[in-house]
Amino acid sequence: MKQGVLFIISGPSGTGKGTICNELLKQEKMFLSVSNTTRERRVGEIDGVTYNYVSVEEFERQIDKGGFLEYAKYGSNYYGTPREPVESRLQRGENVLLEIEPQGALKVKQQISDAVMIFIIPPSMKELKKRLEERGRETKEQIDERMEASKWEFSKAAQYNFICVNDKLDECVERVRAIIHDTVKERGLIENLLKENY
Amino acid sequence: MKQGVLFIISGPSGTGKGTICNELLKQEKMFLSVSNTTRERRVGEIDGVTYNYVSVEEFERQIDKGGFLEYAKYGSNYYGTPREPVESRLQRGENVLLEIEPQGALKVKQQISDAVMIFIIPPSMKELKKRLEERGRETKEQIDERMEASKWEFSKAAQYNFICVNDKLDECVERVRAIIHDTVKERGLIENLLKENY
Repeated sequence: MKQGVLFIISGPSGTGKGTICNELLKQEKMFLSVSNTTRERRVGEIDGVTYNYVSVEEFERQIDKGGFLEYAKYGSNYYGTPREPVESRLQRGENVLLEIEPQGALKVKQQISDAVMIFIIPPSMKELKKRLEERGRETKEQIDERMEASKWEFSKAAQYNFICVNDKLDECVERVRAIIHDTVKERGLIENLLKENY
Repeated sequence: MKQGVLFIISGPSGTGKGTICNELLKQEKMFLSVSNTTRERRVGEIDGVTYNYVSVEEFERQIDKGGFLEYAKYGSNYYGTPREPVESRLQRGENVLLEIEPQGALKVKQQISDAVMIFIIPPSMKELKKRLEERGRETKEQIDERMEASKWEFSKAAQYNFICVNDKLDECVERVRAIIHDTVKERGLIENLLKENY
């Protein structure tokens, strides 16, 4: 049966991954992978949409069962990508969208080697800093840390399948959509070759 | 300093990898990686161009030193991709072209994770068989074996960065050239981000 394709949207904090994914979901039929977390739900967040909110005990039980494609602990909170929903959708032939920071993305790719990794970059570091500041979520120190972290993340960009500059949102979304369509078409060509009698 | 990019051209036997690489070398400034082999030189082949012809002893000494990005033994003959010429060119900022069968390609990618893997496919299995027959190098049994091997190879295509159909040679070469130019441009964007003061 036809397998679905996992599309991983990644890149440093502040590059607009989330906005791009929201736009993609409006225009493309894809299943969005929702992460599990043990942190508390904030105002405006929706259980099962923003995150699946679970207890530390439940999260750790799932770790032991190999239930995550990747997970990490930031401060005292766990975050992870549950394996089952992603793998079952792919098996059913559905395409899956996963928005994730670069360290997690590389871990997922190690397990799902035919995932398509798309790296979103800002037009410049100055612009990235400006976006983080305008978002107004973090202190100056936290923004400096994010800017430093982005350097390590950029140094891994060459391991991705595609790099997209998010200068104008519309254009970036169109480019990602083109990548999705081209990939689905290419995978179809391969499936046809494998089925062909000669 | 700016690193070069390793472009791996791969795909089943008979898809036209060699012809594509010859065309690329006419049009692009790249260093072609030449394989080492212990098999005898055939009429028309040139030492240092078709292959580097070495003794079994020398080949095995190089294996022991970790001198190959990948190697394999077919029948009683060794074939391998020497590590040093590829790595030194990349370090000097030169782009490197490597034509190799899919099993070897995947091994090289494990070691040079930011290599760009391009998979060449035929328009159909019937066409692939026709090309192998017209080449006239092999027996019917050998062609059947190659066709069977191609199925395993196609099943790995999704691990490549790009898939290109070689239906019309000119168009396929143009597509590969576009991939090369786009990649070099993207890697340049990343290098600029890493250098930027903000």
